[in-house]
This record gives sequence, structure tokens and C-alpha cells, in this order.
Amino acid sequence: MARNQRVSPAVIRRLPRYYRYLSALLADGCVRISSKDLAEQMRLTASQIRQDFNCFGGFGQQGYGYNVEILHSEIGKILGLEQDHPIVLIGAGNLGRAFASHMLFAAAGFRLVGVFDRDQARIGSKLAGYPISDIENVEDFCLTHRVAAAALCVPDEAAPALVSRLHRAGVKAIWNLTTYDIAADYPDLLVENVHLTDSLMSLCYLLKARNNGEDTPNELG
Amino acid sequence: MARNQRVSPAVIRRLPRYYRYLSALLADGCVRISSKDLAEQMRLTASQIRQDFNCFGGFGQQGYGYNVEILHSEIGKILGLEQDHPIVLIGAGNLGRAFASHMLFAAAGFRLVGVFDRDQARIGSKLAGYPISDIENVEDFCLTHRVAAAALCVPDEAAPALVSRLHRAGVKAIWNLTTYDIAADYPDLLVENVHLTDSLMSLCYLLKARNNGEDTPNELG
Repeated sequence: MARNQRVSPAVIRRLPRYYRYLSALLADGCVRISSKDLAEQMRLTASQIRQDFNCFGGFGQQGYGYNVEILHSEIGKILGLEQDHPIVLIGAGNLGRAFASHMLFAAAGFRLVGVFDRDQARIGSKLAGYPISDIENVEDFCLTHRVAAAALCVPDEAAPALVSRLHRAGVKAIWNLTTYDIAADYPDLLVENVHLTDSLMSLCYLLKARNNGEDTPNELG
Repeated sequence: MARNQRVSPAVIRRLPRYYRYLSALLADGCVRISSKDLAEQMRLTASQIRQDFNCFGGFGQQGYGYNVEILHSEIGKILGLEQDHPIVLIGAGNLGRAFASHMLFAAAGFRLVGVFDRDQARIGSKLAGYPISDIENVEDFCLTHRVAAAALCVPDEAAPALVSRLHRAGVKAIWNLTTYDIAADYPDLLVENVHLTDSLMSLCYLLKARNNGEDTPNELG
């Protein structure tokens, strides 16, 4: 399965989407699916799907369709979902609370091991079963627990100093809910940005374009 | 500025990003910037930037750079940020609370006009200054207030029935925090999906690939 060629960001972006649709098919008791039927459900083309899967050696026999359970499991392995990377949640506000409470991390290959905040009123209380710890102790904690990743759910202005500390403490990956451009300052960190405002602005653009009668897609994909 | 050619989803996706960087430049007192310098900050190429801007008629004179304030304002207009589309928030849980409390909607061209939930314990209390209303009244409200958009922050299983009601009530655009594939069932609705689990899974993939010594980008962009 390991290949030397670089997998394109667009293919990497589609992997969780395949996994999500296959999870639903599996839950529905679907045993086998053709690339044509999968493509129709996902609004892709069959050749696009075959091309994507070929990046990982392909998973099916021509004309026979894919075994849903095997494909689901293989894509899970490619994503590394079984790896259980220790992650800390930084920021126990509403956003952090939402993430901690919904099994989000466990569903995506991470194991939440600690929650940190700077607010003395929150420190010591519990969030999703975890005691909220003082952010002052985050470096020691990350070093001791070999924390691989951090979810950054703090105000923008707090982000640069926090990332510097997490980086020093050996954290390798940041799930970034702030607008701080981490990758510009830390080319060795893995970064995934969730830009909620950007996302809403895109929807605003689509509404404006539709209202103006412009030819525009109904979702950006 | 209005063009007949369809703007590609990739360009639309970059518009909020341009707007965000230009907002920061403006806040820093920067008056003029070359496509080269802007490209460097945004980790794009200058020719990419010029090509993107040409979709909207271009904004600069060759060799002279862009006026930051004008460019910021023009991109804001292209995004339609001044349009103030009425939006309702469906779901006053932690995620909904986070969105309502952070001026997110106002920053992205929307005006929050109502908050709805099905939980009797929440109905009647206030969120970000808005009384939380009974979801049973959402159709009447949307029709009366000509609501253009809805932010859907509810459990996945509640999504299909809600979207059907919002659609009937004339809502045109959904900011979708659930995994329900709205666009598959409603090709006339504008949809922007925020798939948080997909996003985290992508980060999981990058971590796994990096740990395996594979050549992989440090962010997907």
C-alpha cells in the first residue's frame, strides 16, 4: 500500500469523505458497491473514484465492484484512524466544549488526553470527564504524555504564544480553529485550519451570486 | 465587475482568505502591496493572485501594486459582505452557542435574526441577546422575516426533517454542521458544509504519513 509518489491534497481531502459514505453504506447493510453507484451517491465520477483509489493501489476488481466492509477498513487504515494519537484540547469555551462532548476526536483517530484553559473559573472543573487544567502546565503535560496533537480553540490573539509553547513541547500537529497562520511561522508543524468565517463568507458569496442570477454551483465541495 | 463566466470553486474559496489577509494588512496600516509580497505572505504565487483577481476584472496597475484599502473593500463587495442576509441559528447547544457569541455571522455578511431549539429546557432563555424559540415555530418565523439562510447545528438525525421545513419556508442557503448530504436531496439549496470530523481525519492522515516518512504537505490548504 505504501507508495513513494506524493498523494495530492485533493485526494487526501476526499479520503474522509469516502470513509463517511462507506460508514453509512456499512450501517445500511450494503455489502458491495460499484464505482458507478458510489460515484452517483457522492456526486463524483466513477473514473475519479478509480483514479483516487489507484493512488493507494486500487481496491477492486474491474466490473465486480468494491466490498464495502474491506474498502471502509482499508481507507480507515490509510487515514491512520487506528493510531489513536494523543491530543490535547486548548480552550474550554463553547467551541472546545462542543468538540470534547461529541466523541469527535475518537472518531477521527485521536485520543483526547487533556483539556487546558487559562480561565481560573474553569480550571479544576470537568469537561467530558477530563479535569480542565491550567494552561501554565501544558508544556510539562505534553512532554510527559508524548502528546502528538493539539486542538486550538482559543481567541486569535492567544494563538501565537500558545503554538510556540506547544511546538517546544514536541506537539507535531495542530487542529487550528483560530485565524493565526501557523504554517507560515512553523513549517515543521502539521496544520489543519478550520476557518469558520471563511466558510460562512463562501456561502454569502453563493447567495449574492445566485441573487444576481450568476451561474454558480450550489455547493463548493 | 459582473462577468458571465463561471468563477471556479477554488477561486471562490480563496476570496475569504484574501479578505482575511487584507483585513490584517489594513489593521497594520499597510497602504499598498505588490502581488509578489501578498503572494509571499499567503504562500501563493504572484501569478496565481493576478489570475484570481482577473476573474473579477483585476484591481491593480502592473508594477504599481494594489491599494490595500480599495482591494479589501472590492473583495468584500464581491463576497457580498454588505448584504446582511437574515440568518437563523438552529440548535443552541455548545456549537450553536460558540457561533452566536462570536460575531461570526456579522463578520461574514449575515445578520442573526433568530435562534431555535427543540429542547424545552433551553426555549425561552437567551443566547447572545436572542430569545431561544421553539423549533416548532421556525417555518412561520422564516416566512415572516424572509430568512435567507440557516446555520444547522443539530444532531445528524434531526437534519433531514429540519432541512425539509426550512426549504418549504423559503430558506435558500444552509450552513451545514451536520453530516447530512443536503445538496444530494435539494439541488436548489445553496449549501456550505463544515465537516469537522473530516477535517480532523485529514490531520490524522498527515500525522500518519509524516510518521511513516512519506513525502506529504504540512497543511492541505
